[in-house]
Amino acid sequence: MSAAIDFYFDFSSPYGYFAAERIDELAAKYGRDVEWHPILLGAVFKSTGGVPLTEAPMKGKYSLHDFERSARFHDIPYNRPPAFPLPTQVAARAMLWLQSKYGADQSIKFAKLIYQGMFVHGINIAEPLNVLDIARKNGFDTEGMAEGVNTLSIKNQLKAEIDLAMAKGVFGSPFVIVDGESFWGFDRFDQIEAMLKSGKI
Amino acid sequence: MSAAIDFYFDFSSPYGYFAAERIDELAAKYGRDVEWHPILLGAVFKSTGGVPLTEAPMKGKYSLHDFERSARFHDIPYNRPPAFPLPTQVAARAMLWLQSKYGADQSIKFAKLIYQGMFVHGINIAEPLNVLDIARKNGFDTEGMAEGVNTLSIKNQLKAEIDLAMAKGVFGSPFVIVDGESFWGFDRFDQIEAMLKSGKI
Repeated sequence: MSAAIDFYFDFSSPYGYFAAERIDELAAKYGRDVEWHPILLGAVFKSTGGVPLTEAPMKGKYSLHDFERSARFHDIPYNRPPAFPLPTQVAARAMLWLQSKYGADQSIKFAKLIYQGMFVHGINIAEPLNVLDIARKNGFDTEGMAEGVNTLSIKNQLKAEIDLAMAKGVFGSPFVIVDGESFWGFDRFDQIEAMLKSGKI
Repeated sequence: MSAAIDFYFDFSSPYGYFAAERIDELAAKYGRDVEWHPILLGAVFKSTGGVPLTEAPMKGKYSLHDFERSARFHDIPYNRPPAFPLPTQVAARAMLWLQSKYGADQSIKFAKLIYQGMFVHGINIAEPLNVLDIARKNGFDTEGMAEGVNTLSIKNQLKAEIDLAMAKGVFGSPFVIVDGESFWGFDRFDQIEAMLKSGKI
């Protein structure tokens, strides 16, 4: 099997959610694994001067409409979250904690549930109790998670993961790196597939 | 025939160029005309606080690579311009002047030549003499144009066209409006086609 694909995303990013709904299937089609990397766009934007799409003048209203339209186009369930964008450090830390304690597969299963919680079921995932509630309802180790997300080691790991992502050129969500080639945006999944298929860019 | 599609673009926008190479063919496939509207992103960014992609931290290097990769993916001739981005008011005014004097078809033919001059042949289209040179080599009324681009009426028309575009929500390039539905980016041409085909969004 070839090298894994690196997938970077913020849990508050609608296009990141769309990517999360598709990337494993896409990668598997070409015999690839995916390494999921939760990041915090807030931390990235501090370096790049970026702003959330929905807060950019004129782009904001357009973007809210585009999220819904793109979801329909790609046949992905989507309901505009009541609160958006949100801080997502607790969800990101919970995912990293699961990864370290129970492995990548469990953490990816959880990440998809968090995204669906936010972008389908209208759950405010900035609220730690809501993150734990999603974990509880789906049979994850909620007690361990409640403690894990508050440990210094997980907090530091998330910071280091974001620094590492930025060092690799990651500046948005979703961001995918395939064999050293970077792709920003769910819009580039057609080009990612072409590269996976042909081995060329 | 249904209403024309509105196509907004800046002559310095690579994704605008890609769109310019495809939009007439796409529209014609569904029995639509296209109204071409040159705008100046610089003027738009003054209102929105936007910056050219290539000047945004981290995004800049990525974007230069993405222009080339996307051109290959869509099979569109592309050579990275030596100077980029550029002020494009002379090219935009020349197009508007042609439109008023010789009609839409001539002005669209000219717009495509300007875009190809910039993104295939490495011509600095910020330089008025280069814009006129492209006109001359392709049989346009160069003398009329030289005078036309400097008239107050054409300068004012361009300003008014940009204000009108912004009033319609245009904030980037390319930007396409189909029956009141707005699409930002060459990435949305798949959704535009789906809408033209089905009449639904």
